[in-house]
Amino acid sequence: MKDKKPLILVTNDDGISAPGIRTLISVMETIGEVIVVAPDKPQSAMGHAITINNTLYLDKISKENDSITQYSCSGTPVDCVKLAVNEILKRKPDLCVSGINHGSNSSINVIYSGTMSAAVEAGIEGIPAIGFSLSDYNWNADFEPVKSFVKKIVLETLEKKLPLGVILNVNFPKLKENEIKGIKICRQAKAMWQEKFDKRQTPFGKDYYWLSGEFVNQDKGDDTDEWALENGYVSVVPVQFDLTAHHTIQQLNTWNLNE
Amino acid sequence: MKDKKPLILVTNDDGISAPGIRTLISVMETIGEVIVVAPDKPQSAMGHAITINNTLYLDKISKENDSITQYSCSGTPVDCVKLAVNEILKRKPDLCVSGINHGSNSSINVIYSGTMSAAVEAGIEGIPAIGFSLSDYNWNADFEPVKSFVKKIVLETLEKKLPLGVILNVNFPKLKENEIKGIKICRQAKAMWQEKFDKRQTPFGKDYYWLSGEFVNQDKGDDTDEWALENGYVSVVPVQFDLTAHHTIQQLNTWNLNE
Repeated sequence: MKDKKPLILVTNDDGISAPGIRTLISVMETIGEVIVVAPDKPQSAMGHAITINNTLYLDKISKENDSITQYSCSGTPVDCVKLAVNEILKRKPDLCVSGINHGSNSSINVIYSGTMSAAVEAGIEGIPAIGFSLSDYNWNADFEPVKSFVKKIVLETLEKKLPLGVILNVNFPKLKENEIKGIKICRQAKAMWQEKFDKRQTPFGKDYYWLSGEFVNQDKGDDTDEWALENGYVSVVPVQFDLTAHHTIQQLNTWNLNE
Repeated sequence: MKDKKPLILVTNDDGISAPGIRTLISVMETIGEVIVVAPDKPQSAMGHAITINNTLYLDKISKENDSITQYSCSGTPVDCVKLAVNEILKRKPDLCVSGINHGSNSSINVIYSGTMSAAVEAGIEGIPAIGFSLSDYNWNADFEPVKSFVKKIVLETLEKKLPLGVILNVNFPKLKENEIKGIKICRQAKAMWQEKFDKRQTPFGKDYYWLSGEFVNQDKGDDTDEWALENGYVSVVPVQFDLTAHHTIQQLNTWNLNE
């Protein structure tokens, strides 16, 4: 294994032509054999959606002699991972990386994020996985400053191995490379969106809404991903897909549900 | 508060006309003041998707003198909860219930489930919330046997109060009422889907895929939701939206990420 290049599956939720995934591919090419399976269009905020009531298309968009194989997929980020693992890859990949997302997926955003859901899906299938996001929604965001950090985190993950059932949620602050203070292991901050719907009318007089909102961080801890990002660090949150609130089972067992 | 009827928000992911939500509404009517905001079409497997690149429509489908107010929404189950809380309800509801889903949302299915994502969204917004699902995908599934259990769980939740940040994932076995042995507090079973894509061709010769698969439970524990359902119990799993794998932070802090 030591001599063999690791097989790395790359995906995202902003779509296969996004600058963020292009950066991620360029870094992964220096580490292993790369296969890209990503949505053919933006799929942000798709959460862990899968396509069960519609057909899925896969298109090989790389040419015969290209150095990396690339497929675009008509489905969600999670569909991409499922199709890659079951229909494209000849063996289980050594790593799945998702992103780099144009926009933060820190704190509660992990739940809405297509980027992280793709990584979590890989984790469910037993593949070590990392989601990367930059705190800059701009399509022309500058990903150069984070490339060395992406490489460091991926190499360390390949060497040290992730704990079972754990996926890394990595977020980068929008800073120059020499302004980034380092990498911090964090917990997910207790934060949420306070929605504000923008109510408008169609030209025909029917009301409609745009979802928008304000991010509110109620968490004062200095061990959270929000704290790390605000203070110039790269945040790394270990994420799990066992959603059980184990610590509450004893309390719930005192309820009178069987009387 | 004791004299005031609780305000209950009802939603689902199978769409507002599904028999499952009709059953849930009929039980909630015996407990409190009911407002329904549910998708105008099936939204199964939408996970925690939200609509950010498209417009949202809300249609009031109940008439002036109807006993309950009902809205259909063009968005996902999570959109329904956000719109209900921000644009429809005059005060924070005392409870949000989602379902009854046509099909199980036990074990790993909680992650793909629109039913549970609606409930989790309510939980994030500080509203006590429960998702209900019946292990029967049939549109004509018989929901009568579970009505008394739904009522018991809701009444107990209103009285005892849920632990902070916890949502209940309730699954019913497909059994007659007198065959159901009771209600068990459980953990999420370690299980997953082994995908099998059904590859076909369009009439024009292009390949496409249908996602399908087989559910594989690797978990032998007798404290899981799968065990409970297989053994004739209603399963109740406390679910959290803090996805941090807290128990692995110490281990990850031994990695050499800052050298």
